[in-house]
Amino acid sequence: MNEFARIARYFAPLAAPAGLGLADDAAVLRVPAGIELVLSTDAIVAGVHFFADDPPDLVARKLLRVNLSDLAAMGAAPVGYLLTVSVPSDTDDAWFAQFAAGLAADQAVFGIGLLGGDSTATPGPVSLSATVLGQVPAGTALRRAGARDGDALWVSGTIGEAALGLRVRQGGGRDPEGRLAGRYALPEPRLALGLALRGQALACLDVSDGLVQDAGHLARAAGLGVLIEAARVPVAAGGEALAACLTGGDDYELLFATPPDWHGVEAGVRVTRIGRFTAAFSGVRVTGLDGEAMVFARAGWQHYD
Amino acid sequence: MNEFARIARYFAPLAAPAGLGLADDAAVLRVPAGIELVLSTDAIVAGVHFFADDPPDLVARKLLRVNLSDLAAMGAAPVGYLLTVSVPSDTDDAWFAQFAAGLAADQAVFGIGLLGGDSTATPGPVSLSATVLGQVPAGTALRRAGARDGDALWVSGTIGEAALGLRVRQGGGRDPEGRLAGRYALPEPRLALGLALRGQALACLDVSDGLVQDAGHLARAAGLGVLIEAARVPVAAGGEALAACLTGGDDYELLFATPPDWHGVEAGVRVTRIGRFTAAFSGVRVTGLDGEAMVFARAGWQHYD
Repeated sequence: MNEFARIARYFAPLAAPAGLGLADDAAVLRVPAGIELVLSTDAIVAGVHFFADDPPDLVARKLLRVNLSDLAAMGAAPVGYLLTVSVPSDTDDAWFAQFAAGLAADQAVFGIGLLGGDSTATPGPVSLSATVLGQVPAGTALRRAGARDGDALWVSGTIGEAALGLRVRQGGGRDPEGRLAGRYALPEPRLALGLALRGQALACLDVSDGLVQDAGHLARAAGLGVLIEAARVPVAAGGEALAACLTGGDDYELLFATPPDWHGVEAGVRVTRIGRFTAAFSGVRVTGLDGEAMVFARAGWQHYD
Repeated sequence: MNEFARIARYFAPLAAPAGLGLADDAAVLRVPAGIELVLSTDAIVAGVHFFADDPPDLVARKLLRVNLSDLAAMGAAPVGYLLTVSVPSDTDDAWFAQFAAGLAADQAVFGIGLLGGDSTATPGPVSLSATVLGQVPAGTALRRAGARDGDALWVSGTIGEAALGLRVRQGGGRDPEGRLAGRYALPEPRLALGLALRGQALACLDVSDGLVQDAGHLARAAGLGVLIEAARVPVAAGGEALAACLTGGDDYELLFATPPDWHGVEAGVRVTRIGRFTAAFSGVRVTGLDGEAMVFARAGWQHYD
């Protein structure tokens, strides 16, 4: 099947109305008055962000979800996405069929449609990118800057399962029910929580690089420090795995600042108060289970260290 | 320099206001009333779309330009773009500096700004993608469908130089002034022409896959055939290179349909009438210099043949 036949068969059925059936050179999108568009892009590469033998449908869903998590962090409702797919030239139709099935599944889950895309050959590993579009009422997007001295630091869900899941996939640790590996393979963007936090949170981001490092982003954006109490963090595992959970990344939970007297919100996921912002120092300090300051070999994941 | 330092140094200075200094999880874009957004995405891969030893600034500009050409084809004015950059983990700061300088140069040329991005490591070749945003007054975007029986087919600029330039880079043919290779390395998106064609052209696309194949897209979208007279096509070279010019691709010229009595437009680039649409057959027929029908081994470029 050639490139055009593949687009017609596997991708055109995924097109949103603004995608014009993928038959034009671009999408045409009307944006309602009073609405701001929220846009983000992320790339994932086989051997870096997923395993080359991961099922293509799961890879497609991970691609969408890591992108949608950025919309969640801004408090945006998802609208649609554009996609690039670079795969070896001998990639077969079954791969495209499964990949498209994964896209279709998550389009239904998140109420989004495909706006456009590009598929190319590559002599290297499968390389994928998506650009997601969301919307917010003008002026309501959540930002990273905004925490104040004394504000509380909250996190959604649990922290560290994805990092432990990656270890499991690399041959380390036990995961009899596949929960940890599943958490790494298929993040859960906290979109409903993001919407609920509009007008509530003073600052927000999603935890992709590790809790400690991402808390540092919130603190720096506010010109403050942040103190995290490890005993309060809903970690996947304690003991020697505690540091790995706090710095591991790929959690895609929301980390956010609220006034100190905020008491939580109902949005389908637990939220936990884990620390507070302070003008007394800059950066991140973490108090361990023994009450002493924890020291980390690395604060979080970075490419190009 | 780590990932965050590189973003701050090389990419944050390129941010448009809506890009929020690249300090948030996403861009926030306000769209004026009466305006429709036009969105397109393209990926380019070292060894497929450019040469691994091409200067990084030229690669950056090619990435932007192949994307902007899709906006030109829709008659859209460019607004901004998002970017993903996947490079080997030993890529040095000089590469990023040159790549960002190329982006900056073309941002100035085209009046656009960076809205967001992602940079990752890859064990494979440099893989880049961009999503470009443009705008049109609502309802004025040029589309591929719309040509009618008897309408004229026009093309901008010249056809085949990029294909010959690629041959030169691969060791074939003469190019003493580097004009052909330059045309392959650095396309010229016909944005001013696209704007001028709003309300004039009945259908339009950009020639990326080869003139013959792309003419077929216009014909199919209209449910018609199209007859091209090779003698009228402003080709880079005749003789044995004629077929290569007509099917080679990477031209990024605009190919468009107009009423038969249309006489051209001033938009900084020559436009040439090269054929007409007809209900008498479907597909593309090309009349050669001898008046006989030309037969092509391939109509244009496709991945995954």
